[in-house]
Order: sequence, then C-alpha cells, then structure tokens
Amino acid sequence: MFFMKYFLTVFCFLFIAKTTFSQHTDWKNDTTAIDAIFKNALTESSCYNWLEYLCKGVGHRLSGTPAFMAAVEYSSQILDTLGLDSVWLQDFKVPYWERGDLEIVRVVESAQGSFELKCLALGNSVGTGAEGLYGEVVAFNSIDEMLAAGESKVKGKVVFFSRPMESGLIRTFHAYGRAVDQRYNGPHEAAKLGAVAALVRSVTTLIDDHPHTGSTLYEMGGKNIPAFAISTRAAEQLGQLLMAGKVNVFLRSTSKFLEERQSHNVIGEITGTEFPDEIILVGGHLDSWDVGEGAHDDGTGCVQAIEVLHIFKRMGYKPKRTLRCVLFSNEENGLVGGSFYADEAKSKGENHIAALESDSGGFTPRGFYMEGSPATFIPKFKKTGEWLDLLLPYGLDMNAGGSGADIKPLKEHGTLLIGLAPDSQRYFDYHHAETDVFEVVNKRELEMGAAAMAVLVYLIDKYGL
Amino acid sequence: MFFMKYFLTVFCFLFIAKTTFSQHTDWKNDTTAIDAIFKNALTESSCYNWLEYLCKGVGHRLSGTPAFMAAVEYSSQILDTLGLDSVWLQDFKVPYWERGDLEIVRVVESAQGSFELKCLALGNSVGTGAEGLYGEVVAFNSIDEMLAAGESKVKGKVVFFSRPMESGLIRTFHAYGRAVDQRYNGPHEAAKLGAVAALVRSVTTLIDDHPHTGSTLYEMGGKNIPAFAISTRAAEQLGQLLMAGKVNVFLRSTSKFLEERQSHNVIGEITGTEFPDEIILVGGHLDSWDVGEGAHDDGTGCVQAIEVLHIFKRMGYKPKRTLRCVLFSNEENGLVGGSFYADEAKSKGENHIAALESDSGGFTPRGFYMEGSPATFIPKFKKTGEWLDLLLPYGLDMNAGGSGADIKPLKEHGTLLIGLAPDSQRYFDYHHAETDVFEVVNKRELEMGAAAMAVLVYLIDKYGL
Repeated sequence: MFFMKYFLTVFCFLFIAKTTFSQHTDWKNDTTAIDAIFKNALTESSCYNWLEYLCKGVGHRLSGTPAFMAAVEYSSQILDTLGLDSVWLQDFKVPYWERGDLEIVRVVESAQGSFELKCLALGNSVGTGAEGLYGEVVAFNSIDEMLAAGESKVKGKVVFFSRPMESGLIRTFHAYGRAVDQRYNGPHEAAKLGAVAALVRSVTTLIDDHPHTGSTLYEMGGKNIPAFAISTRAAEQLGQLLMAGKVNVFLRSTSKFLEERQSHNVIGEITGTEFPDEIILVGGHLDSWDVGEGAHDDGTGCVQAIEVLHIFKRMGYKPKRTLRCVLFSNEENGLVGGSFYADEAKSKGENHIAALESDSGGFTPRGFYMEGSPATFIPKFKKTGEWLDLLLPYGLDMNAGGSGADIKPLKEHGTLLIGLAPDSQRYFDYHHAETDVFEVVNKRELEMGAAAMAVLVYLIDKYGL
Repeated sequence: MFFMKYFLTVFCFLFIAKTTFSQHTDWKNDTTAIDAIFKNALTESSCYNWLEYLCKGVGHRLSGTPAFMAAVEYSSQILDTLGLDSVWLQDFKVPYWERGDLEIVRVVESAQGSFELKCLALGNSVGTGAEGLYGEVVAFNSIDEMLAAGESKVKGKVVFFSRPMESGLIRTFHAYGRAVDQRYNGPHEAAKLGAVAALVRSVTTLIDDHPHTGSTLYEMGGKNIPAFAISTRAAEQLGQLLMAGKVNVFLRSTSKFLEERQSHNVIGEITGTEFPDEIILVGGHLDSWDVGEGAHDDGTGCVQAIEVLHIFKRMGYKPKRTLRCVLFSNEENGLVGGSFYADEAKSKGENHIAALESDSGGFTPRGFYMEGSPATFIPKFKKTGEWLDLLLPYGLDMNAGGSGADIKPLKEHGTLLIGLAPDSQRYFDYHHAETDVFEVVNKRELEMGAAAMAVLVYLIDKYGL
C-alpha cells in the first residue's frame, strides 16, 4: 500500500444516495450468479493455502530480492495450473534498496539514562555508515512546525517527528493520510534544514513495540539523511524524555541503494469470447516490505486477484471480455511495475475498461472505491451504480475514492479505477511491520474479498462500461 | 450467545429501502454529537483494559462458579467508579453444571487403529461415569435422517451427528442456526431412540483441532445420554473411518449437574433527567462457557455495555431517560438471569422502551437487528429508520432480525429489542472454544462497537420511541 493514493483521493469521500441509480433489469439471474460466486469462493477456494505458501514458504519479498523472484516463480506456477489462455512475465529494472545489518536507535543521554528504542530504518533511507552518528534530539509535531522553527533549531540535530496517527477517526486510511507526510517528506525536509538524521513515530494507532517501516523520499543528487521509524511506545517514551530535558541519541544503519535489478510483473489472462479487446484487470502487488511476511500488504491482494480467475474457471464461466490478472512489482519502493504496465498497454493500444486492485488488506469486504479521468469517470461510475442493489445485500457499497497505486497510471487511459475497500480497523496494526504475517489473515474474510471482486468483474463483463 | 434467537428470527431478514424513512430534522447537531461519541470512544475508552482483566484476571466464568462471582465483583467495582446514580445486584439461583475431570473420545477399533479425538463434553450433558463406556459409532447427517433410520439402527449405538456448518453462507449466524440443532436437540432425540451416547461435529466452519462446546437439551426426569463435541478435523477423520468400515469408541466424561447456586445480574444506572421512568437498557452476559476466556462471548458485550454509560459520563451528557447497564448471568446454560430481570421489571411496573444487547462478538459494528412484540414493533422500528441517514456514514445499518437472548423476555413488555450486529465472519472460529481469548479481540473494533451502541442510545434518548 503506497500512501499517495490516500493523500489525493480519500478526502473526496463521496456518498451516493443508495437508490438513485437502481434501474437494474436482470435482477433475478444476477442475484443467482452472485450468490453462486460467493458460495464457490467460500467453499472451493485455494487462495488461503496460496497465501500460506507465499507468507511461510517465500516470506517477505522486496522487489529485487531473491525472495521476490521466488514469489514470481510461485505465482506463475499457480497461474499455469488454472488453464488460462496465457500466462507471461513483463521484464524491467527496479531500484534496489537494502536494509543492511544491525540498526540502532539508542538513547545515550537522558533523564532516564541510556537504553535502546525499537526501530526500523525507513525504506529508501541512506545509512549512517557502520560507525553510526551521535546527535541531540529535537521534536516537532509536524513538518510545518519544523519549518516555522527554522534552520537554527534544526541544523546539526536529530529531528523527531512525533505526531500520532489520529485514533479518533473511523476511517483509518484517512488517519494514515494525515500522518504519513512525516514519514515520507519529513526526513527530506529536515535534511534541507541541516538535520543530521530523522526519527519518525510509526504510523499506526496501536501502541506497541513494533516499528512500522515504509518509504521515505530520496532525492537523487540531493541531501539525504538517515531516517528511522521508532515504535509508538518508543515514541511516547522519547516524547516524555524530551519534556524532562536534553536527549542525545546514537544512531546506526547501513541501509543503502545498490544497482538496479531485474524484476517482473506476473500476468495471467482469460481471453474474452465476444469483446477480447476490452480488458478488465484485477491485481495486487507481489512485492512487500522487508519485514514480516507481507500478508495483508499485499499477499492477500495477489491471491485474491488470482482467485477471481480461478472462480470463473471453476464455475465454467467464460467471460465476454478479456479478464487479466496482474501481480505488480515494486509498489512499495518505486511503483515501476505499475508504470511499466501502463506504458506497455499504451504502446500496444490496449483498451482497459476497468482495473480493480486489492491493496488495503484481506479483511471483510465493505465495498469499492472508484476513480477515473475527468472525462470518463462520471458515466462509468453511474453505470456501476445500477448494480448497487445487487451488492448491498452482501454488505458492499460503492463510493468515489482512491483505488490502487499500481493501477493509477491507467487513469489517463480512461480506465475506471477501482479499489477493493475491506474493513480497515485492523489494517494499520500490521502495516509494514513484523506482525503482518499469515496468522493475522482470516480465511473467510480473504475469500469474501475475492468473491466481492469476482462479483464486480462479473457485472462489468456482463454489462460493459 | 444462545442459539434460539437465530433460529427464530434471522430468517426474516428484512431489507429496508435506505431512504424511505429519512425525515430527520436535527441532522447537523446529531451529526456533531455522533462524531463526538465515536471520537471519544476511540480515544478515551478503558473498555479494552477492562476486557483484558476479565479475560486474563478472571478467565472463563460459567455461572455458579467462583470465577463468575469474581466477575460480578470486578464489574461492580468498575461501575462503582463511574459516578452512576445507582449500582446494584439482583440475586437468584442458577442451575449449576460441572464438566468434571478428564474427558475422552477414543477410537478403539477402526480401519486406522486406535487414537483419541479432540473433544469437549457438551454443556448440560450427563457423564459416562468414571469407568466410561464403549459403543459402535453410527453417523447421521441430520436428526431427520436418524429418525428415518429408526430405533433398530440407533439402539445401543453411539450416534455421530456429522453435518458441517455451511461455509458457503455469508451470514454465519444463519449457518450456525442451520447446524446447531444437531448439538442442542440431537443427543436428546438419539437418547429417545436408545442410543448410548452422542458425538456432534463442532459448529464452526473452521477446520481445526479445537472442539466447540455449547448447551445440549437436558430433560429433567427424561432419558439423557452423554454427549460430546468433537473438533471439525476429528469429525472429518471419523467420517472417513466410517466409510472404511466399523468404528468402535471408548467415551468418558464425569460431567454432571449439582445443586443450584446463587448468582447475580450486575446493574448500573444513570437516572434520566426528564423521563426517569422510561428505561433504555444496554447489556451483555457476564457468564461464559468453561473453556477459553469468554472474550467475544461475551466479555466484549459486557465491557461495551459499561462503556456506553462511561462515554456519556466522560462527555458530561445527562440522558433525559434512564440509562441502565445490565450484565446478565446464566445466558449460556439456562437464561435465568434474563428471565429474572424481566420478571422483576414486570412486578415493579418498569417501562423499558428499548433494550440493546451486544452478544455477537466484539468485531467492527455493521449495524443493528431489531425485533419486538407484534403490536409495538412496526411503529418503533419505523421511528429508528428516521435515523438511518445518520448511521450509514459509520457503516451501520438497521434491519429486522434477532436481538439478544437475555433481553428476549422483555419482548412481551412492548420493549424494542435490539442486537448489535458486528461483522460476523470470525465469530464462530472462536465461539465456545479454547481459542476465544483476549488476544483475538481488536481494540479499535471493540471501541467502535461501544460507540455504535452509544450512538443509538443517544438517538433513542433524544427522540424517544
């Protein structure tokens, strides 16, 4: 899950009057089909087992790593068994960043003496060098507060961005969007004011000892400083120490960029029987951060996307339009997979009528967020609204909002971009942390998500857009 | 959670057209208040900590046990700290059943030899005596199938009810209702045909090694036989063995009823400022089965009910009507607490305008199910429909359906009975099993449920019914 989509779009949360668009005519057949899709997914699916192997057999899989290549091989093998019309890889280079060895954030001078804080270097961050560095901590509640304080308060210091993700908001992606600027832009802004390093409170509402990593802005040829996430409990402790007096820290990280590496998007397709040139894409991203097992982010999205094709295969349903599953590379630290895919599609003149990404966790599906280019969005969105009466009995809603980072480059193609919207209350407990493992995914919820995706694809395939 | 409510009412799932009743006039003030309630619950609540103590400090707490009394003491102490207008206990006797020592279901002769199956004696079941008993297993897919086979196939045998809970249904409470007759009525019906004991496949869609207990029908003075739940994996294995040939088992349980014991409902109240005689009840049940920690069933409901009062206290909101929190005893094996409460209310001439129970797990709230007496239900339900536009932005819906077992006896009082309806996909994974522990409850989801309850109570208090 990449943060920019939420930044840009969650705020335009647009509530549809529930009955406005209900003009649906083939209600009975569609209800029967939808019920059959859910039943099939909840009784015949292999996607929970696929996820188990992806998490336990492969593990975390930052793009560029051997583990990512193992995930490419494993997911290709699954697609090969489904009897699809074609399965292939796209090849491109991705930026390659490595965490390096032992990371340390140690308080060395404070009102409570000396001890370590739980930390993870932020993705894309430069290291301190093996020898580490010392500095005095200065805390800011926001980037703006730091900018107002100015260079004299920042130069030579370790800047600590301390603002908590707001637990009082019911939409956790909204709360994430309001806190994550500290992680993505904060260290870079601090560097411009002469800071020597940055610490960022982990972006989660959970108070525990697990730091949450994620990408921070790296400026090629610019000034970049070492940046670390610290756990929320460590952040609270550090905040208290700073109230009590001066705090000096020792920091160490050997994280760094290396040469670009080869990577792949993994693709499988069922060719449409009537309109093969109209493509409906379902996808997730195969890469993950280099901690935990990338279970909810985004192993669940990948196995759900494959499962959509598998459901149609098991049911013997031949789509009229081409149904393509794409497992993207490099969502977490570069978005190269998504850009490459859209460029290829453009150069081939492909027509993607819709793209549906699952990258918000494998929890009970609550509906879909949709977006698109100004010229095409409203009529397409209105068309999907005709199906709302079919989805509501399954607890599924449709709203305008952010879709998915990997499919976003298709926006200018006139594609309707859709994000699966699962229940979001638990997502940021695990997001980019050691705790995002297979065990925190529920089998039924995962399958329900795949079914919800398959249902929407069924309707788009049947009625077009 | 007692099964009968689902049996009777979930089938009449009644879908409200979303905008039909929207005639709400004080939208802006109410929106502000509702937002404040959610924020308060998500940022200031202690209910997750209360639940931790109830689960870890007290543990499971079948009514009649010392642990149940500890839960009475602990919950009373919490209520005492909230500055309520009164806190009291109701006293009555409850049936007392004990699991006894070592339970055994062992296959002693089969195509695969001899081994043990994971089991739990069903609640209210008689034991085998310490010496145990041997018998040949005969499997039936349903009570009807057994009745059709008749006494000659059943007499002297160990009847195995093998029908799985249907994983293909998206409403898990519906699936539960369609499977649980095997557990509740099955052993009793088998006894009438001369069976010596009964085994029941655990009522969950999860395939694992944890048996799920729950009450089975005990007929005073009638014929009762020892009855055991076996884990779903054990049930699948037993089914396969029976396909391969004869299966004999050894069974042992020393479970039994003892003398009735003293018990209590725990009650706390904020007296209404304008209409003190109109009571709005919020509740859950304090007792649990004697395995696991009674976390989702129903520790979460208890701490949420207390939390509703606490939210109003923290916000300095003085309800016009009397707001009463009731933590019921003996929901799991007798429903004496609920009956006693309703009888007392009747004898005192109390007017309960609404009763809201949380007893379907502490997951993300999805809305409310409502029911009532034929004479009073429709106008009250219609009145609540006027608030739907306020609840939908929080993902909360209102439908006709089963409420809660403890409040059901208030139905004939003309009370609007309301059940909190959380997301139900995970509930039966843990229900009545060792796995229903504090760790499987999520803090935000728990608090969201309490907030949803408080919001509905706020609206009922403001507008009446």
